[in-house]
Amino acid sequence: MRQIKREQMNSTQKRIARRDFLTSIGRAVGSSAMLKTMAAMGIGTSLASCGSSSAAPGMPGSPNPPPAIPSPRPGDWPTNVGVGKSVVILGGGIAGMTTALEMTMLGYNCTILEATPVAGGRNRTIRAGDVINETDSSQTCLFDFDSDLYFNAGPARIAHHHEFLLGYCREFSVPLETFTNYNSGALLHSATSFNGQPQTARQVQADTRGNIARLLALAVNQNALDQELSANDKVNILQMLRSFGDLSGNFDYPGSERAGFPGQQDTGSRQRGEPLTPLQFQEIISETFWQQRQDFPHSLNQQSTMLQPVGGMDQIARAFENRIAADIVYEAVVTEIRKTADGARVIYQDRVGTSMTIDVDYCVCTIPASVLRNIPNDFASAHQSAINNFNYAAAGKIAFQSRRFWEQEHNIYGGISWTTQDITQMWYPNAGFGRANGIVVGAYMFGSNANNFANQTPQQRINSAIAQGRNLHPEYGNEAARGISVSWPKVPFQLGAWGTSDPGILLTADDNIFFAGEHLSILQGWQEGAILSAYHAIDLVVSRDIP
Amino acid sequence: MRQIKREQMNSTQKRIARRDFLTSIGRAVGSSAMLKTMAAMGIGTSLASCGSSSAAPGMPGSPNPPPAIPSPRPGDWPTNVGVGKSVVILGGGIAGMTTALEMTMLGYNCTILEATPVAGGRNRTIRAGDVINETDSSQTCLFDFDSDLYFNAGPARIAHHHEFLLGYCREFSVPLETFTNYNSGALLHSATSFNGQPQTARQVQADTRGNIARLLALAVNQNALDQELSANDKVNILQMLRSFGDLSGNFDYPGSERAGFPGQQDTGSRQRGEPLTPLQFQEIISETFWQQRQDFPHSLNQQSTMLQPVGGMDQIARAFENRIAADIVYEAVVTEIRKTADGARVIYQDRVGTSMTIDVDYCVCTIPASVLRNIPNDFASAHQSAINNFNYAAAGKIAFQSRRFWEQEHNIYGGISWTTQDITQMWYPNAGFGRANGIVVGAYMFGSNANNFANQTPQQRINSAIAQGRNLHPEYGNEAARGISVSWPKVPFQLGAWGTSDPGILLTADDNIFFAGEHLSILQGWQEGAILSAYHAIDLVVSRDIP
Ligand SMILES: Cc1cc2nc3c(=O)[nH]c(=O)nc-3n(C[C@H](O)[C@H](O)[C@H](O)COP(=O)(O)OP(=O)(O)OC[C@H]3O[C@@H](n4cnc5c(N)ncnc54)[C@H](O)[C@@H]3O)c2cc1C
Ligand SMILES: Cc1cc2nc3c(=O)[nH]c(=O)nc-3n(C[C@H](O)[C@H](O)[C@H](O)COP(=O)(O)OP(=O)(O)OC[C@H]3O[C@@H](n4cnc5c(N)ncnc54)[C@H](O)[C@@H]3O)c2cc1C
Repeated sequence: MRQIKREQMNSTQKRIARRDFLTSIGRAVGSSAMLKTMAAMGIGTSLASCGSSSAAPGMPGSPNPPPAIPSPRPGDWPTNVGVGKSVVILGGGIAGMTTALEMTMLGYNCTILEATPVAGGRNRTIRAGDVINETDSSQTCLFDFDSDLYFNAGPARIAHHHEFLLGYCREFSVPLETFTNYNSGALLHSATSFNGQPQTARQVQADTRGNIARLLALAVNQNALDQELSANDKVNILQMLRSFGDLSGNFDYPGSERAGFPGQQDTGSRQRGEPLTPLQFQEIISETFWQQRQDFPHSLNQQSTMLQPVGGMDQIARAFENRIAADIVYEAVVTEIRKTADGARVIYQDRVGTSMTIDVDYCVCTIPASVLRNIPNDFASAHQSAINNFNYAAAGKIAFQSRRFWEQEHNIYGGISWTTQDITQMWYPNAGFGRANGIVVGAYMFGSNANNFANQTPQQRINSAIAQGRNLHPEYGNEAARGISVSWPKVPFQLGAWGTSDPGILLTADDNIFFAGEHLSILQGWQEGAILSAYHAIDLVVSRDIP
Repeated sequence: MRQIKREQMNSTQKRIARRDFLTSIGRAVGSSAMLKTMAAMGIGTSLASCGSSSAAPGMPGSPNPPPAIPSPRPGDWPTNVGVGKSVVILGGGIAGMTTALEMTMLGYNCTILEATPVAGGRNRTIRAGDVINETDSSQTCLFDFDSDLYFNAGPARIAHHHEFLLGYCREFSVPLETFTNYNSGALLHSATSFNGQPQTARQVQADTRGNIARLLALAVNQNALDQELSANDKVNILQMLRSFGDLSGNFDYPGSERAGFPGQQDTGSRQRGEPLTPLQFQEIISETFWQQRQDFPHSLNQQSTMLQPVGGMDQIARAFENRIAADIVYEAVVTEIRKTADGARVIYQDRVGTSMTIDVDYCVCTIPASVLRNIPNDFASAHQSAINNFNYAAAGKIAFQSRRFWEQEHNIYGGISWTTQDITQMWYPNAGFGRANGIVVGAYMFGSNANNFANQTPQQRINSAIAQGRNLHPEYGNEAARGISVSWPKVPFQLGAWGTSDPGILLTADDNIFFAGEHLSILQGWQEGAILSAYHAIDLVVSRDIP
């Protein structure tokens, strides 16, 4: 079960290229060992407060551990370095499966202990008949059976520069398609602006740019920026602003065709007439919602193009699983993690409730800190306290099956509408365009909204998501049905959405125990982060075995 | 052959809804007959110079006829109004096939005369073995056989508000997927800026927004705009600008993570470090290219989301053809268009060169004006001179088969890179992500570039597209192969890309002859325009037959 063969020859070529690249990085910025020591000591974490909005999907400004070090990656490690050594990997999510896949390739004898009957962890897609268990409720998915009718309860989009995750998709032949964050035909809705009427993204965008350009052109033309701009700069910037804002000849903003025509979201292109009157700029800038909501798709990890696996995010988990299934022990709930003289011992309950013991040379633990803190262990006290204090974001989603009224009647094909209401977002399906029915994500919420959601019953969640959704789409109440929700803080073996603390000491080994998982990466809340964390842990293990 | 059945019941419901809508429009803005008369007289065309960039794909600022009238559409016409009447439709493009489809449903006996062996006209997708004939050359497509390896030589994207075209796709079950215009990982390249080094779209975008926000914040903070902004507005706009530009606490722009990290286009997210140094703002505003190029995806018809049929644009033409094939006479080259006492007579050459005559009650002519002007006819002199003087844009494209190095090595998934060189654009495939090979569109050019292209041999076009493409991607020379090109001004029965003149008199009947085609619509250069033009012509015919 150790003979995993890479399927595409050019992955070998790529590894060589990567090794060359790394060498040159090493030369340029100092020895990798030194950099790792720095990271372990928390040096270089000072950028954590640089305002990154990239860590948490959809959560601008959530704290993000720093750009730390050039990550190690496959190709850095000597072949066969692990022959004769055994590893137990705790947790079969993306981090655990990556660890098993890559360490097996290096010759290690790997075993994954996974608490649930399926690998993938947070990478989870819900379809007809699936059951969602939370700590105090259970729901069965009532969607129709159809490859198109699925709900990505956890991860749903992949940034185009998440190259390791995308590399695995390529290697495993997981088909991908485009995921849309920004759709100019989707809606922005504030309960307290524009009389609570939703506005099309295209109009808010056009009018915002128009007004910014108009005001800056005015300042330039009034010579207010002459200390900053030469005469030539002024000519150039004015030309640019005219195009940027679609300004008139005299640098006014009378409105723009970019905003669409009246009723265009309902009638398409046939019905034109006079362009729309611009929205009151005072009102566009009046609330944080309008000030910031449009900038979401500009953050590094949310920029176009985004991708999604055809048929559901779990296609990725299934592809990993196909390659390492023989190494996974399912329904194996880890109950104790111990140190031995020269290795580690893990106790787990198997599927019939028997307590089992596994002794190994190394343990790589990818169990979320939110869960791990309750598992008896021999960790050093610094590691224990880091785990105990690790913060987790809350997040929740709800999905409905519905006639695709958003396509048929409002020309909305994929993308996201935003609202100030608790539901925060509404996601239209990015595939299956033109079909009769689709799955709409009727809420994707964080923070206090997500905590309220956690405390509601599944039926209460449905009721309030429908009530709020109607303020974006009046037809929602008649069309959206079969609601099913997930609140990540209440999912057993997860107890949170993603980590938000500084990884700190957990990036270092605790004797023969090593830690991984998305929370220990520079990309918290992303699958790519889970992979990067796995590479980091593998690197620590391998460095023990290099003679 | 007249019994075409709509496949989806709810199209009927939709027609009823449309009729209601139209009625209310009619009430609001005056009688539809009056509006049509206005359009026919050219009244309302004064908006043509309003700076629309929507008409021609990729050609900002091309003239666009005005928002004219609430377009007529299926559902406006009485059932069976055409029973017993015959119509000959000249040209089997989207306009001709729409006319046949809808008029057949109204009871008319329709015949399409199409010069070539396949319907679709400009809607044309090139695959392995296909032949592209121009007036002075012939090329055979050497791509590998693969559903994924196709080249949309004409139309390639559909705006989400082109609801009639999308409605037919829904009705005909043509699968659609997302088409990307803006990819932050794609490149912008000016031969005369930044030492000719291509820049990632994300960096140009982030630095442009950063600098605009910084300068406007400066003006606001210097009280330069106090006549425009209240104290409260100032607080709000500053908050918005901080987010808009990703400014620092003191409204400076030191660079932004939105621009990516050094080398990110090649190394993904693993290799971070200090954020990129911002591009010199002087240089970003120095040329029209930089001033305007980023604004392309903001124009109404180019806004996200855009769509494409899975497997090639001609899936739409095939779907139309499936429904009306029995009414199409292929390889029927119209050679004369005559009036008769109570109808029209069309002479054509059939596939063996025999001259044939067809006498009908009505003729709907969708032949492009560029071709039509050379066909002997009995048109009124005003119509003749409008046809003779109708301007057409030139456009050309070239495509190559290549290893997907842009995905594998540069994290580019779909979208467009832009350059100041003649090739103007490079389009990466928006589907088949992760596969070994793909079709890259290595040039899509207009105006004088397209005219130069027209005068080159196919081999010259390949050579220069490769040479220029290498300035965006050095590996292009080794990877891009099997080039095949199309220059629309040289394609027989087309002789141009799309019309750019005011339709004027051609929107009115010439006795029993009626005109249609994209050039006679408010959406010139779009398939939706071809459909709207067909509805307009049908409306004129039907109004003759309403008792
Ligand atoms: C709502 C939401 C949205 C997200 N959106 C995106 C997105 O759009 N794109 C993206 O890339 N990422 C997204 N993420 C993040 C992504 O899901 C995670 O980063 C990634 O899946 C984490 O992988 P992991 O292996 O580190 O952890 P997990 O997937 O949590 O794996 C840990 C595993 O440990 C197992 N386990 C726990 N306790 C025990 C025990 N006692 N014994 C044995 N096994 C145990 C669990 O069952 C689980 O399988 C999202 C996450 C959430 C919650
Ligand atoms: C390069 C390019 C890019 C484009 N991009 C897009 C895009 O992205 N999206 C989009 O929606 N649209 C796009 N368009 C526009 C779109 O292709 C047209 O608007 C539409 O296809 C025109 O349809 P039509 O029926 O009016 O004309 P045509 O398709 O030209 O149909 C006219 C028909 O008449 C036939 N004919 C000509 N002469 C004779 C004769 N003597 N006898 C008999 N038959 C004759 C021709 O063979 C042809 O089949 C693009 C066009 C081009 C050229």
